[in-house]
Amino acid sequence: MVDIDPIAQGLAQDLMGGVRSDSGAHVTVIASPLSTTSEVIKSLNSTTINLGFIDISSVKTSPLLEVESSGFDLAKFLPTHPMAGREVGGAESARGDLFQGRPWMIDPRGVDSDLVAAGREIIAICGGHLIEMAASEHDRAVALVSHLPQLLSSLLAAQLEGAPATWLELAGGGLRDTTRIAASSPRLWREIIAANHEALGPLLDRVIDDLRALRSELSDPARVEEFIQNGNRGRSLIPGKHGGTARNYTYLPVVIEDKPGQLARLFDECAAAEVNVEDLAIEHSPEQYTGLITLALSQSDAQKLYQHLLKQGWSAHAPR
Amino acid sequence: MVDIDPIAQGLAQDLMGGVRSDSGAHVTVIASPLSTTSEVIKSLNSTTINLGFIDISSVKTSPLLEVESSGFDLAKFLPTHPMAGREVGGAESARGDLFQGRPWMIDPRGVDSDLVAAGREIIAICGGHLIEMAASEHDRAVALVSHLPQLLSSLLAAQLEGAPATWLELAGGGLRDTTRIAASSPRLWREIIAANHEALGPLLDRVIDDLRALRSELSDPARVEEFIQNGNRGRSLIPGKHGGTARNYTYLPVVIEDKPGQLARLFDECAAAEVNVEDLAIEHSPEQYTGLITLALSQSDAQKLYQHLLKQGWSAHAPR
Repeated sequence: MVDIDPIAQGLAQDLMGGVRSDSGAHVTVIASPLSTTSEVIKSLNSTTINLGFIDISSVKTSPLLEVESSGFDLAKFLPTHPMAGREVGGAESARGDLFQGRPWMIDPRGVDSDLVAAGREIIAICGGHLIEMAASEHDRAVALVSHLPQLLSSLLAAQLEGAPATWLELAGGGLRDTTRIAASSPRLWREIIAANHEALGPLLDRVIDDLRALRSELSDPARVEEFIQNGNRGRSLIPGKHGGTARNYTYLPVVIEDKPGQLARLFDECAAAEVNVEDLAIEHSPEQYTGLITLALSQSDAQKLYQHLLKQGWSAHAPR
Repeated sequence: MVDIDPIAQGLAQDLMGGVRSDSGAHVTVIASPLSTTSEVIKSLNSTTINLGFIDISSVKTSPLLEVESSGFDLAKFLPTHPMAGREVGGAESARGDLFQGRPWMIDPRGVDSDLVAAGREIIAICGGHLIEMAASEHDRAVALVSHLPQLLSSLLAAQLEGAPATWLELAGGGLRDTTRIAASSPRLWREIIAANHEALGPLLDRVIDDLRALRSELSDPARVEEFIQNGNRGRSLIPGKHGGTARNYTYLPVVIEDKPGQLARLFDECAAAEVNVEDLAIEHSPEQYTGLITLALSQSDAQKLYQHLLKQGWSAHAPR
């Protein structure tokens, strides 16, 4: 395991426990910025490469061309792409279930069968949902389902600059959701967008056309309704989360006093009830001296904890 | 409680338990479509109106004008707006905590003080975060923080029509988040957008200009980086979960054993160190028997807790 950031490397090493970072690997997974792929291969090529390299970058055509032009044997270079990024990076954003049930694209054409088998094994271990696709088709697909969303999210967030703070206080969940990925890394995305600009261009043209049409008919309720309906239809095309083990939590809201020690008390109750808390969200309402804790649990654990908390006098609300 | 949909009305009545729907109310909350506000007031005005009406619709100027032109006394009409919509509607989507800590705009100017007091009481009971603002300013604000996000989310989702199913299988969390509100009701939004088109027009013009500029420089990594950075800045302006100033947390990663009682132990340490945990994320790594807890704290509390945890032998990592 190698990282240019020593803090990230230290945390990653700790999370991995006893796994050695430099002992003779069978395959090497390259997770460096797009433009450095062939450079990384070159620097590692002098040591034993064994089965070869697995590429997990966000665009597939440009690293392929780059690696090919560097003279490296493409049979030892497997293009793949796990679709499970987050708006945060580094080992502190690692999640054991990050790839669970998530799509993981692979283009095995012309690649050594041993390397392909190793790639498939890694994807299976991570719980990824394998999708075979040609590199060039992949790039057109992610332009639509990944890169365009990124650009529109960044575009929307950028409009907020200069707005009075009170206006932003009115922000609800809609703005938060639509701009979540606007917090993504500019260094990462400058490479992705530029590397895939040919697929993105026509998509942006259509978006601009659609926006100009909407702009000219903004006061026409029938036209606006149609515009929102088009969005309904598009949204309904997005498949549900993949894999039987996708996260389906039940949420249990608990209102607590907003003072030190309350969370520890609540988790003591969780331990007493022998339930496993999968995730939680904390909402403070400082002016009211209360906080709303929403615990994410399995359905059965949520029911169990709910009954337990009620008995102990907590202000728990029906899980759903 | 009156609803044009008998199924919704039945469920709502059931949820409300013993509350009578028609017994002499002190105030009447109008939650009907924008264009029907003055009609509803007219139909109810023949019965006793008591303190008056509380309007909770998404646009504030157009119902005010409509009610005024109908000859109704504006001192008995309180414009408010709770910013807590969901992409689903009806009584089956009701949540006891829907308004908890959420912004709730109110424009009390020229309204009877008894009605204003009743409005404030309702907002307090719901746990809303009260924000006083003129109706016209509200409409410009929500054009930016609510209506523009809706249009861009619908626009993005609409681009998915006609895409091959395999492309959509590659969709990750980014596309899901950015298009979540694209599932919103066309009937609801046709009214909102049309009613607020004057505030929205200039915002759309700017968005179109920004998109055209981006389109022409899509292959320039430096320009793309700047575009994503603008989005980063805008996103950082959105305040935390309730109103108030934007919060910048420091994140402290702690690796724990993935077994019951560990979270409670960790929170006991937080109480011992006298720090205030603002938020946290839990990441399980089931196959490794470790969990990664990321605590969100103020910068000084993060440093304090980090030192404390290290002394106590916890596997904490440098906050950032």
